[in-house]
Amino acid sequence: MVNFASDYTEGAHPKVLERLLETNFQQTPGYGEDPYCEEARTLIREMCAAPEAEVQFLTGGTQANQTVIAAALRPYQGAVAADSGHIAVHETGAIEATGHKVLTLPEQDGKLTPSAIAALCRAHWGDSSREHAVQPGLVYLSQATEWGTVYSLRELESIAEVCREFGLSLYVDGARLGYAMASIGDAPDYRDLARLCDCFTIGGTKVGALFGEAVVIPNQILARDFRYHIKQRGGMLAKGRLLGLQFLALLEDGLYAEMSRHAVLLAQGLRRCLQEAGYAFLYESPSNQLFPILPDAHLAALEEKYVFNLVERRDGGTAAVRMCTSWATDPQDVKTLMEDIRAL
Amino acid sequence: MVNFASDYTEGAHPKVLERLLETNFQQTPGYGEDPYCEEARTLIREMCAAPEAEVQFLTGGTQANQTVIAAALRPYQGAVAADSGHIAVHETGAIEATGHKVLTLPEQDGKLTPSAIAALCRAHWGDSSREHAVQPGLVYLSQATEWGTVYSLRELESIAEVCREFGLSLYVDGARLGYAMASIGDAPDYRDLARLCDCFTIGGTKVGALFGEAVVIPNQILARDFRYHIKQRGGMLAKGRLLGLQFLALLEDGLYAEMSRHAVLLAQGLRRCLQEAGYAFLYESPSNQLFPILPDAHLAALEEKYVFNLVERRDGGTAAVRMCTSWATDPQDVKTLMEDIRAL
Amino acid sequence: MVNFASDYTEGAHPKVLERLLETNFQQTPGYGEDPYCEEARTLIREMCAAPEAEVQFLTGGTQANQTVIAAALRPYQGAVAADSGHIAVHETGAIEATGHKVLTLPEQDGKLTPSAIAALCRAHWGDSSREHAVQPGLVYLSQATEWGTVYSLRELESIAEVCREFGLSLYVDGARLGYAMASIGDAPDYRDLARLCDCFTIGGTKVGALFGEAVVIPNQILARDFRYHIKQRGGMLAKGRLLGLQFLALLEDGLYAEMSRHAVLLAQGLRRCLQEAGYAFLYESPSNQLFPILPDAHLAALEEKYVFNLVERRDGGTAAVRMCTSWATDPQDVKTLMEDIRAL
Amino acid sequence: MVNFASDYTEGAHPKVLERLLETNFQQTPGYGEDPYCEEARTLIREMCAAPEAEVQFLTGGTQANQTVIAAALRPYQGAVAADSGHIAVHETGAIEATGHKVLTLPEQDGKLTPSAIAALCRAHWGDSSREHAVQPGLVYLSQATEWGTVYSLRELESIAEVCREFGLSLYVDGARLGYAMASIGDAPDYRDLARLCDCFTIGGTKVGALFGEAVVIPNQILARDFRYHIKQRGGMLAKGRLLGLQFLALLEDGLYAEMSRHAVLLAQGLRRCLQEAGYAFLYESPSNQLFPILPDAHLAALEEKYVFNLVERRDGGTAAVRMCTSWATDPQDVKTLMEDIRAL
Repeated sequence: MVNFASDYTEGAHPKVLERLLETNFQQTPGYGEDPYCEEARTLIREMCAAPEAEVQFLTGGTQANQTVIAAALRPYQGAVAADSGHIAVHETGAIEATGHKVLTLPEQDGKLTPSAIAALCRAHWGDSSREHAVQPGLVYLSQATEWGTVYSLRELESIAEVCREFGLSLYVDGARLGYAMASIGDAPDYRDLARLCDCFTIGGTKVGALFGEAVVIPNQILARDFRYHIKQRGGMLAKGRLLGLQFLALLEDGLYAEMSRHAVLLAQGLRRCLQEAGYAFLYESPSNQLFPILPDAHLAALEEKYVFNLVERRDGGTAAVRMCTSWATDPQDVKTLMEDIRAL
Repeated sequence: MVNFASDYTEGAHPKVLERLLETNFQQTPGYGEDPYCEEARTLIREMCAAPEAEVQFLTGGTQANQTVIAAALRPYQGAVAADSGHIAVHETGAIEATGHKVLTLPEQDGKLTPSAIAALCRAHWGDSSREHAVQPGLVYLSQATEWGTVYSLRELESIAEVCREFGLSLYVDGARLGYAMASIGDAPDYRDLARLCDCFTIGGTKVGALFGEAVVIPNQILARDFRYHIKQRGGMLAKGRLLGLQFLALLEDGLYAEMSRHAVLLAQGLRRCLQEAGYAFLYESPSNQLFPILPDAHLAALEEKYVFNLVERRDGGTAAVRMCTSWATDPQDVKTLMEDIRAL
Repeated sequence: MVNFASDYTEGAHPKVLERLLETNFQQTPGYGEDPYCEEARTLIREMCAAPEAEVQFLTGGTQANQTVIAAALRPYQGAVAADSGHIAVHETGAIEATGHKVLTLPEQDGKLTPSAIAALCRAHWGDSSREHAVQPGLVYLSQATEWGTVYSLRELESIAEVCREFGLSLYVDGARLGYAMASIGDAPDYRDLARLCDCFTIGGTKVGALFGEAVVIPNQILARDFRYHIKQRGGMLAKGRLLGLQFLALLEDGLYAEMSRHAVLLAQGLRRCLQEAGYAFLYESPSNQLFPILPDAHLAALEEKYVFNLVERRDGGTAAVRMCTSWATDPQDVKTLMEDIRAL
Repeated sequence: MVNFASDYTEGAHPKVLERLLETNFQQTPGYGEDPYCEEARTLIREMCAAPEAEVQFLTGGTQANQTVIAAALRPYQGAVAADSGHIAVHETGAIEATGHKVLTLPEQDGKLTPSAIAALCRAHWGDSSREHAVQPGLVYLSQATEWGTVYSLRELESIAEVCREFGLSLYVDGARLGYAMASIGDAPDYRDLARLCDCFTIGGTKVGALFGEAVVIPNQILARDFRYHIKQRGGMLAKGRLLGLQFLALLEDGLYAEMSRHAVLLAQGLRRCLQEAGYAFLYESPSNQLFPILPDAHLAALEEKYVFNLVERRDGGTAAVRMCTSWATDPQDVKTLMEDIRAL
């Protein structure tokens, strides 16, 4: 069986493992205070043109979201997210466990819109009994989104402007940031993100690392004492260098971008194949995740050889599935899948 | 510089890395639902003679403590710990962040005593206004303790009996469990722990893994829905197999016990050397951590070649330091250190 | 100006004040352990035919909701509520502040339906990755609802059945319980509530008390150690007898039911008047709250003499307002208001 | 039986009840936005010479402590308190329930000392691994203390200076503030408190009100959005005017000070009587609480007519008890008690 269900089914890019192996018996201080983490921090600050930004490394996405959001909000504030946002539906109430409500807005192709955020804020502060409701405090968005769609630079700028107007923090969950950047020409780059966001992550887990998310915090107020937050939320890795080393391997020599392009290229080839075969999509995604809708019989036939992720059963005997490529996807596997699709 | 400051300064035992390498391109389901985690679970259940026990793998110790304790307690209950306990002093309030007080008792050589726990419980339930105070709900202890001391089977049995009498859960933080087992003849083994505790951990981070703690939950009530707790606290690793694979490497073929013996043997040799050289100790530790007290001048001389962990400056121009060995300690380094000590 | 905006604009029924006055200089133990609270508990247990039920008195509704829900749920569980539910929109995230998500379902006339709850549960437990989502743990409903509508006994029984099927607790927020009972013939009575719910409240604040909600807990497991929860959430009143005394005054001699009928009678008279005058309603409410839709000009005219609660501006130059009666409403004021409406 | 066990055994001063009665049928907005609360706010600001201070009214002490402390602290910070402090021992972990550790220091006559606070801060920020421990964020003290002792102005100034030096907030729990002010000549007055503290409370519950604590917040940053915190913690009273009215009655015409003097005068007379009769005291308290140590036989004799609060059984067949006077204590009762003591 070939697995297209997610982008975290394999281990890590060989260069990542190489780095871990060659440094294995070196002795370093723990908790991310080693030279490799320092080097990776410097590299990220340069990429972001943000020499003052705080950079820390956490092991996973939910951990990063929970730590950042709890650090950014006052107790009575909530995080604004699309109703399909990861923090709203797939984190077992990790945000609520830190005391904060997730304020959901209807998604538009998986995205938040500036106008919906502005309307929420106007409604909140325009109400004389506002203190009886959770105050919007931060906007959470994921790049790429849960549905594989991607915010353009212009869209992100508009949202950042609304955030500034109403005093909200802006946080971008970049679990699939590499795939987003490789997908459309006008996606925000590292410098854009550092300029527009209070905090964003560069996801390693889904883009070639064993695990790890780099948290970049250009906002100096949010950055203050951030390591206390990490420790308190259980996210401070004893052998922190494992994270620094991985991000060095990923970000040096353009490996991260290269792996991302690889995955997106394969996914978009697959997308064209599905389109030509006449299938519709739940979302029009330009990145490494596709959401085609297939008749149950076709799906059953494919599932004899491939694993996908079921998204929803639909009327008329069809189903939407997620098909994912990643840095590790073998082009030959995609080619065979495309042949099997054409043969249906 | 040779580092004796802690037992997490290197990477992982080569056999651990080997396992990760040889499986790197295999595709598996995420979140600990892969065959390797299953295999490691089975192995641990066998070692513990606890075929029904829940076994889950987390990335770090604070994360494990916080997840287990929050799962075991009712909102108004607290965790009883020695005042030197890790959850009381070194986790930035991670337990409090889940809403629970840590109820501290004076330590005895780093340990809790059954009589002190019983006295606390009697005082609480004997008070008519008891609902104005936090109710003891769980006993937390670490094996080995923060000071390298080790509970004997008999001591653990006595504490377990007090816990049963007052309806408290018993949780053993086994971050250094291997070193404890290798240290004294009458330390509780896996079967004892599974029989006496509601939950305990088998620490990987400090005993040869890159990272990882196995959480063993013999208590079926506590085990219920435990994976929800893990996800909510940010501890569910996407590529969960990394944990299963590491524990397989550690626990198959007795590697874990072997590495632990290696470290304890070296530490105890060093202890005798220090004793013979006339130094006193803050605690009499039979495991891999030593806490000798040295004159400042001697310490300064050694610190030109070695890194230790300063525990406290003391009157009379002396200081107590921690000297740690681990699975990775080179016997030659210990030998040289002993020579340097004798030459002081 | 005559205020029809809410049902808590006045103080307390004179009989309530009388009780406080006549006992003012008596000395009693604090924290609800006085003879008056005991007497009120006994009375409530009799009314509910629930001799074993735990009964405690809290000062306010949000406090009661937060204390009960945090006591009933496991950390990873959420409270299911209508999207218009008080805990979902008007409590500044008080439930989230205790670590729990509010899982909202679309309301039907302000009510939850058994089928929607069942569908949510089936979707949750039917999903193999269920531990990535908040588990439904309790159903919250208010009787009467935020929109003045009232659950019939049959509706409540159906919901209770779904709760039993899926292992959820059932909690009824009775801030306006008196008005609900006075409104329709087949509303559940105290015995029904005690039989069907794990917990419910009898609201005093809006029905003749200065303040106070009686929390009735037929479920013995939920009842356990409940006073610890109250204290921990800041809800244990030092002079607890003030609550016992008020509930004695309200519940002895049928005053509570009598006051409720008074309010509902006046509201329903007003409703007929509004209907006859041709106004539509946002909701068809049989209790003490009405939600008529008026043209802006008519509203402006009335607002020269009366205070209402604006619910929403609507298209076409109209607005929906809340008009409330209460135990304290002067029939003459309603009569005059009706005349003014007819004269519009 | 005459009750000297606590200072909240009766209802309220008649002038307080009078105010409630005479305004009972007035209609006012809810939630503390009525004219009476506004009037009380203005009065308190004047008394404090703090025209910009935020003033809010809550129903109880634990509620006030929990709301203020959670509002003042960042998630990873703790509240420094004496180990006998109310938040440390008598609030069922209400502070921990908001996510914060209480950092206790050994008390000195029930008080915190500036040097102990400074030492704690120096130890914390002087440690290179500080982010592994809870950061001190606020100093909590009660005036008078749990043991009836009272901070002098000079002591409070010293503590405030330490707080400024290390960036900690200073919060004074004034549940017995009136009694403290009436006890010693150099106790800080309202202006001192407003000048030195970030927040303090003026306790009503124990000094003549039915219930209620006025929270005064001179610090504008802490004051921001404070009403959201109140609502979120379940402390916003629907008929908020009940609190405003009570504080108006208490603070107008010097009633609060007069009642406090009454209680302290009686207590201090009783103290001299006990001293002359040869009894020792657990603490030397100048306010309305006394902690004499009596032989068991004497105590038993007195307890046939009086209720005291047992503090601790002691060796040698003695016990320490709390004897409290209050605004409501009948001088004749104290006189009779003194006669009975002399007759022992």
